[in-house]
Amino acid sequence: MDTMERYERYKTMTDLWLAGRFVPAGDGVDGLRQAMAYTLGAGGKRVRPVLCMEFARICGLEPEDALPIACAVELLHTYSLIHDDLPCMDDDDERRGQPSNHVKFGEATAVLAGDCLQAEAFAAICDAPVEEADRFRCCRILSAAAGAGGICGGQFMDLREGPVSAEELTATDVCKTAALIAAACAMGAAAAGADEQTVAAARDFGAALGMAFQCRDDVLDGDGFCALLGAEKCQQMTEGYTHDAYRLLDAFDDTEFLRELTEKLAGRTA
Amino acid sequence: MDTMERYERYKTMTDLWLAGRFVPAGDGVDGLRQAMAYTLGAGGKRVRPVLCMEFARICGLEPEDALPIACAVELLHTYSLIHDDLPCMDDDDERRGQPSNHVKFGEATAVLAGDCLQAEAFAAICDAPVEEADRFRCCRILSAAAGAGGICGGQFMDLREGPVSAEELTATDVCKTAALIAAACAMGAAAAGADEQTVAAARDFGAALGMAFQCRDDVLDGDGFCALLGAEKCQQMTEGYTHDAYRLLDAFDDTEFLRELTEKLAGRTA
Repeated sequence: MDTMERYERYKTMTDLWLAGRFVPAGDGVDGLRQAMAYTLGAGGKRVRPVLCMEFARICGLEPEDALPIACAVELLHTYSLIHDDLPCMDDDDERRGQPSNHVKFGEATAVLAGDCLQAEAFAAICDAPVEEADRFRCCRILSAAAGAGGICGGQFMDLREGPVSAEELTATDVCKTAALIAAACAMGAAAAGADEQTVAAARDFGAALGMAFQCRDDVLDGDGFCALLGAEKCQQMTEGYTHDAYRLLDAFDDTEFLRELTEKLAGRTA
Repeated sequence: MDTMERYERYKTMTDLWLAGRFVPAGDGVDGLRQAMAYTLGAGGKRVRPVLCMEFARICGLEPEDALPIACAVELLHTYSLIHDDLPCMDDDDERRGQPSNHVKFGEATAVLAGDCLQAEAFAAICDAPVEEADRFRCCRILSAAAGAGGICGGQFMDLREGPVSAEELTATDVCKTAALIAAACAMGAAAAGADEQTVAAARDFGAALGMAFQCRDDVLDGDGFCALLGAEKCQQMTEGYTHDAYRLLDAFDDTEFLRELTEKLAGRTA
């Protein structure tokens, strides 16, 4: 299977799993499920679940068995997008060319849809058909990536007004972007029962890839490090982090897919 | 130790644990920690952690060992209070006589403080000094109580406008109030390694107590079932659920504390 085929296969698995998760149940909560399903189905690239399933695979697990854990990462990511778009946060009316969640369903429902997606992320891990001890490790990894040292801390730092230093911007990106991509990789390895050193190597790769991803974003959008240090320096940073990511893959076998994906993400134009 | 002494002991343990959890770390996230610590320290009665530790105790675990799990329930409860108070939700400027979180720290920080408390609740469970399999059971119980079938679903149903039926109001209260109190009891039993039947019995007791608690709230505030069916009927419901709760305690030994606490909660005047 070539890289694009495998990517599409993982993405389709993710899309189908997520589409089946919040179907109407005929109780009083269908409106909330609809709001969750709306942003979950709004055309995400599914980079995080793809990374999670691929790490599971190269560590010896069938990707299917890691699917609920991979989807847990996407549930958590989607909650963070919904909350980031809120009027009191980044106040974005659109997300991927569609009305953002609060524009479509109102602010109260959007807050609750995000809240609920976070809870459902942990519930999804608990249901995965892998060893209980490994599910538990995934809960631990995800909760750390979601909290004050992860996306909540990163979004908080991102709300800061006024000029920021390169050090502050790095701290923000590490928490806001890299932590969850790192968690996706680490959870794939953990789901497969890999030892702690291997899980840490997967996490370090994901952290480097996440920073490369963010720096490339900054180049494309002209903000973040691009605004602070210029496009050339920001592109150099993208390449530096990409180089780190490649090097960190040396700890694993069968990494052709991950190397091609890293290259694509670091060189993407949208 | 009499009931009030034991309650105070559990409450003090909870207060101290929570007060030590989000201390400044000198990074860029201290403002978020401060917002979390503010509502965590704002004078809660700690009913849920008390129930959790007492169920742990009667199922054979030292209450100290259940403390992080008990506090996880309080972290989750506190997140739900912060989000419930937001302008787009119940729009409450005060909570326990103090400015609510968004009034004190701004709406964006309040949303993030709630989000982060939810993540930190799962992180707290992962750190508890009990069997890993039992921590995992607690993660499962808490994620179910937090999601669409629990507090998020309950708050969503509570946003409904216009008249509600007694059936709809029951569904709302079951999710919004009873689910987390039930989870607190079940997690205490699970933390102690109790079998699934015992965990289910603890959960059923907590669900009945939670409904009694909510109906008593309605009597005191003149809303909910009191507004719908009248004060007398609502007080009868309180007593019916209290009776159920007592009966469900018959599955356990050493329940004097729980019986007295149930009586106090069902008869409280504030």
